[in-house]
Amino acid sequence: MIRPWPVHERKQLLETTIFKLHTHGSTSPRTGSRHEFVVLEAPDWVNVIPLTVEGEVVMVRQFRQGRGEVTLEIPGGMVDPDDPDPEHAARRELLEETGYFPRRLEPLGVVAPNPAIQSNLCHSFLARDLELRGAPQLDSTEEIEVCRVPLVEIAQMIRDRRIDHALVVAAFWHLRASGLVPSWGA
Amino acid sequence: MIRPWPVHERKQLLETTIFKLHTHGSTSPRTGSRHEFVVLEAPDWVNVIPLTVEGEVVMVRQFRQGRGEVTLEIPGGMVDPDDPDPEHAARRELLEETGYFPRRLEPLGVVAPNPAIQSNLCHSFLARDLELRGAPQLDSTEEIEVCRVPLVEIAQMIRDRRIDHALVVAAFWHLRASGLVPSWGA
Repeated sequence: MIRPWPVHERKQLLETTIFKLHTHGSTSPRTGSRHEFVVLEAPDWVNVIPLTVEGEVVMVRQFRQGRGEVTLEIPGGMVDPDDPDPEHAARRELLEETGYFPRRLEPLGVVAPNPAIQSNLCHSFLARDLELRGAPQLDSTEEIEVCRVPLVEIAQMIRDRRIDHALVVAAFWHLRASGLVPSWGA
Repeated sequence: MIRPWPVHERKQLLETTIFKLHTHGSTSPRTGSRHEFVVLEAPDWVNVIPLTVEGEVVMVRQFRQGRGEVTLEIPGGMVDPDDPDPEHAARRELLEETGYFPRRLEPLGVVAPNPAIQSNLCHSFLARDLELRGAPQLDSTEEIEVCRVPLVEIAQMIRDRRIDHALVVAAFWHLRASGLVPSWGA
């Protein structure tokens, strides 16, 4: 039986725009020895699979500083303090990044991006009945290209790493398991 | 056409046992404006789906400081400097955390845990022909319970969040897409 480790001390080492870096002083219930752990405190995240009536996923290309690469992802971002819930954040991010408003938004599932070192969750949604409301609204740190990818090609693109963001793959797991979309190709 | 952003300056803010925190000063090719981004430089990670001849996945329960919860995960960890490759790290982590040595280890796929803020990749493997070589070898910061979960129950457990680690879900995506294991239940 694994028990939670009591945390005796929390210290904030620094704060960035996307997380706060904390240390936790915590004691093993098994050995009684005390250790220090690093934790990234971050707001929850959302991502959205926007599906057109033609069976295409609306995706975004952007340069990602972590990997130093241009990636292909589904729209997503942080739940802001002004968002009343993750669903609101998902609608907002989809509209900002692609110009599409989802008339239908369904929750797909929730994952922990990294329970070992991050406090937050990522909520995935399926967006359908998309209405194009205008151009994407990007801030000066964003440079995004919107493109469409047939849903039946997604599995192959994950296989050959044209899509490799773990949270995007998790969202597609949840979509596939949901049974909401019958046709997956390979 | 999205172009890479030139990085003009890299600064290390701090170093922990699992990552180095850097800032990148970088310029948008679209607007010419300069911004600062936070990047976690970390070694690659591995995780392993150990599958018994009975169709059970060998999993590990442990307390995770980030979420402050006891989680159910597949074995995994960092690629250490002494590991010649991710495959070696996968064998080592599996043996350390569960006591099982995989006589057969097959690569399943690779994801980027978070390309926006992390530099590293996570390599997933399928381990079969498992040989129990002894008790788990845990260090004093680890407290792990080994358990077995029928593969046919995994999809339901992800659905109801008994399993919710994004990198574990991504590994199961790759296993499912690989066709290496025919029986998935739901």
